[in-house]
Amino acid sequence: MDLHGSFHVYDTTLRDGAQQEGLTLSVADKLTIARQLDGLGVGYIEGGWPGANPKDTEFFRRAARELDLKHARLAAFGATRRAGVRAADDPQVAALRDSGAGVVTLVAKSHDRHVELALRTTLEENLAMVHDTVSHLRAEGQQVFLDAEHFFDGYRANRAYALEVLRTAYDAGAEVVALCDTNGGMLPAWVSDVVHDVVGTTGGRVGIHAHNDSGCAVANSLAAVDAGASHVQGCINGYGERTGNADLVTVVANLELKLDRQVLPPGLLRDSTRIAHAVAEVTNVPPASRQPYVGTSAFAHKAGLHASAIKVDPNLYQHLDPVQVGNDMRLLVSDMAGRASIELKGRELGFDLSDNKELVGRITDRVKVLESRGFTFEAADASFELLLVEEVEGARPSYFEIESWRVITETLSHARPGEEAVSEATVKLTAAGERFVVTGEGNGPVNALDQALRTAIGQAYPEVAKFELIDYKVRILDQGHGTDAITRVLIETTDGESTWVTVGVGHNVIEASWGALVDGLTFGLRRQGV
Amino acid sequence: MDLHGSFHVYDTTLRDGAQQEGLTLSVADKLTIARQLDGLGVGYIEGGWPGANPKDTEFFRRAARELDLKHARLAAFGATRRAGVRAADDPQVAALRDSGAGVVTLVAKSHDRHVELALRTTLEENLAMVHDTVSHLRAEGQQVFLDAEHFFDGYRANRAYALEVLRTAYDAGAEVVALCDTNGGMLPAWVSDVVHDVVGTTGGRVGIHAHNDSGCAVANSLAAVDAGASHVQGCINGYGERTGNADLVTVVANLELKLDRQVLPPGLLRDSTRIAHAVAEVTNVPPASRQPYVGTSAFAHKAGLHASAIKVDPNLYQHLDPVQVGNDMRLLVSDMAGRASIELKGRELGFDLSDNKELVGRITDRVKVLESRGFTFEAADASFELLLVEEVEGARPSYFEIESWRVITETLSHARPGEEAVSEATVKLTAAGERFVVTGEGNGPVNALDQALRTAIGQAYPEVAKFELIDYKVRILDQGHGTDAITRVLIETTDGESTWVTVGVGHNVIEASWGALVDGLTFGLRRQGV
Repeated sequence: MDLHGSFHVYDTTLRDGAQQEGLTLSVADKLTIARQLDGLGVGYIEGGWPGANPKDTEFFRRAARELDLKHARLAAFGATRRAGVRAADDPQVAALRDSGAGVVTLVAKSHDRHVELALRTTLEENLAMVHDTVSHLRAEGQQVFLDAEHFFDGYRANRAYALEVLRTAYDAGAEVVALCDTNGGMLPAWVSDVVHDVVGTTGGRVGIHAHNDSGCAVANSLAAVDAGASHVQGCINGYGERTGNADLVTVVANLELKLDRQVLPPGLLRDSTRIAHAVAEVTNVPPASRQPYVGTSAFAHKAGLHASAIKVDPNLYQHLDPVQVGNDMRLLVSDMAGRASIELKGRELGFDLSDNKELVGRITDRVKVLESRGFTFEAADASFELLLVEEVEGARPSYFEIESWRVITETLSHARPGEEAVSEATVKLTAAGERFVVTGEGNGPVNALDQALRTAIGQAYPEVAKFELIDYKVRILDQGHGTDAITRVLIETTDGESTWVTVGVGHNVIEASWGALVDGLTFGLRRQGV
Repeated sequence: MDLHGSFHVYDTTLRDGAQQEGLTLSVADKLTIARQLDGLGVGYIEGGWPGANPKDTEFFRRAARELDLKHARLAAFGATRRAGVRAADDPQVAALRDSGAGVVTLVAKSHDRHVELALRTTLEENLAMVHDTVSHLRAEGQQVFLDAEHFFDGYRANRAYALEVLRTAYDAGAEVVALCDTNGGMLPAWVSDVVHDVVGTTGGRVGIHAHNDSGCAVANSLAAVDAGASHVQGCINGYGERTGNADLVTVVANLELKLDRQVLPPGLLRDSTRIAHAVAEVTNVPPASRQPYVGTSAFAHKAGLHASAIKVDPNLYQHLDPVQVGNDMRLLVSDMAGRASIELKGRELGFDLSDNKELVGRITDRVKVLESRGFTFEAADASFELLLVEEVEGARPSYFEIESWRVITETLSHARPGEEAVSEATVKLTAAGERFVVTGEGNGPVNALDQALRTAIGQAYPEVAKFELIDYKVRILDQGHGTDAITRVLIETTDGESTWVTVGVGHNVIEASWGALVDGLTFGLRRQGV
């Protein structure tokens, strides 16, 4: 399948996506994400703006040496030459040319007002800038795309000029001109009309670059494709400035699964959930749980009525089978959950509750009470399983009895920079008939408690040495009440083979963490068959 | 303007929105949100399912007594009568009838497969259920809407039957039939075709109820309106099951500001940002910063190039003036920020840096370094201002000198339920030439430190008594590293007149909180003119 041929899937996470509030990427992050995007099978990865952004210059330098992309071509993004300077003499253009990228995507003004106010040059000179820069890079052997910035607004203000910019780019050798809705204000019907006109009038190859300011980035992209565009720009996870770029996976999934248009190499769409979440780990921006297709909530069902129907056939409440995008259906346990949800969840965890309506009712009630106190079982399957065991077997699994714990955090008398305070925790407990008093140290209170607890329990149960805490999330509930609020902590633990999530709730982060830590170790020991 | 006349804006946050993972509303929450939605001027508020959901029965009971809505009518949601039972004899139908709501919205199956598999009755009986229930409620004096569940899928499977369900509802007196894309799998062009057909064939009044599983809920709603629908259902902030319902404010803003269609009372759209955030406080679901129109990032500009242009004219990079939805433009300070952003931000805070390029450069560099260590100034204007002051005046404002601090959290020997541990913090500092050693207590370590710090400083600066910590956010950066990760804390403080946000970073939540607390008090004292 020719990804660089009849349809282009073009990701600009590393350039436009990085303009998102709160998103910062190191060069190493960018290289990692580039590999991940390549795994999804996109045709083009816009790596950044070499020459203008030192981090990006470095990225392209290292990419040439270290990146071995199987599917994607790397694109360098940059501007047309400065007014009044020849492209061949412009150092920023040279940086694009010499970046090592096989493709250069040039951004050019196509809105007359922007030429006058932002570039402060003439409409004629702007056309010359486009022609000169495109033909210079073509002559140097690069594939050239043009991003017609503010195209739709420019088309409305001065259609003739906007089209002239496109024609100039095509004449100079640009393979694709991407029409950018830079301010994001377009609606799908308008995009459709404009793209039809452009395709019909210029006969050139058209792309679309949509933003989500009207909540229609995905729909605008689809409308453009329907009107003849064959090159779609967006960002994985919809990253981008302001409200973001079009979510590239949503667009691609719609094209492949609903519009029968294969745009990725066969089979790779099934990796999209895994890859979208992997990229989110690197960007360190928590993924939106309700993101279409790949979000953790995208196929999560809460209403009891829906759960009852899903028992009959999952497709009664899902628009397609989540496995096509590598996602799962989830049944949520919550106070909305009817008995059907609890029963199905129990079955998922290996408990057959179908004969015991009274038990299911009791569990449902207990869940509702706990959730009103701040617990959530939706994301903490291991804590829910411990609750089930307690109700089914009559007692919660217990491998140790806590007597007391205490943690002290204090400033060091001679603090090294960045290390102002240390923590020390003392835990007293009884396990396997013996009493243990253990002190643990750490760079924070939860870290110290975790050390102490595990060392103490580990003396009775050596299996604990396998466990490792790999993720830790804090959430302050009842925001607005300052430091008195209820705190909820989710902890993910691994034993090297699988991972499990437990929840803790308390008046402060230490209390909440304690609860989640204790549950995490208890669940882990039960899994070991202790 | 008749909100119950030619165009209906219908919010279902309290019913469909509540099906969102992680969203739980008490009856008090629902009453508060109902008032907030009324403030936005929506025509209808779907309050819940009385009779089926005890919380909702209570809501309608209290609403009748306590809610004094100026614009909206309350709607009770529920199902058509059970198969084989008369509507007049069905207790769930009676609950809808007796709920006190002026409007009842009945959900009915319009997909033949659902009638057979989920309801387990005949296609004929389903029609009778629709007719019987609608006419019963009309006879009892209520306004009736019908939600045609799974309509678009049902239309594809069996167009004749789906239309028959609609006709039956209209004949029995339903004022509107809302076509529901229950599984969320529709695309705008398909919605347009179906709605055109329904409007043309039945001549009845049509509504749209879209979900966001294809990322097109807003676009689908607009397509339906364009094809003749005059009733739009959605949720504020796009709440809802799985990927959510159509974001009602996005739809309304697009209709009013781009499609020249007034659907709210004049002037109320300007309150949408405030109201959307107020509702988010009640739902306790952190609002999506990149939400169109009302998100805190919706008009936030990061790229240096954009900031340069915005200096000339804000409309060069915005699709409309944010004041129309009550939002603000924001210039972000970050390592992407060029000098233009820092300069503009400085001006926003009252500092004229335009003559001092060297200073602006130094500040920009410092911001980049701090952000690489985990700080964020994007959300912490007060911390950024302290940094500016330090650079501009040569020294950071300082009202006290910390000698040391220590905090102990330990379990109580006779713990009351829900109160397992208490904290005690001791702070030693010098202020106004005097040394203070103060111990504070609290139900958590940060709470205790805050008490101790404020009591100590308050002895030198009584102004501190006015300050109150009103919001506290924790974020673990570098997720995946267990309890060793860098922690960032944002604290919002008020002096009763204004509020300010400060940031702290550290190896653990206590260290990070300490930094934010110290900055918060410092900034506050400076504001007091101390």
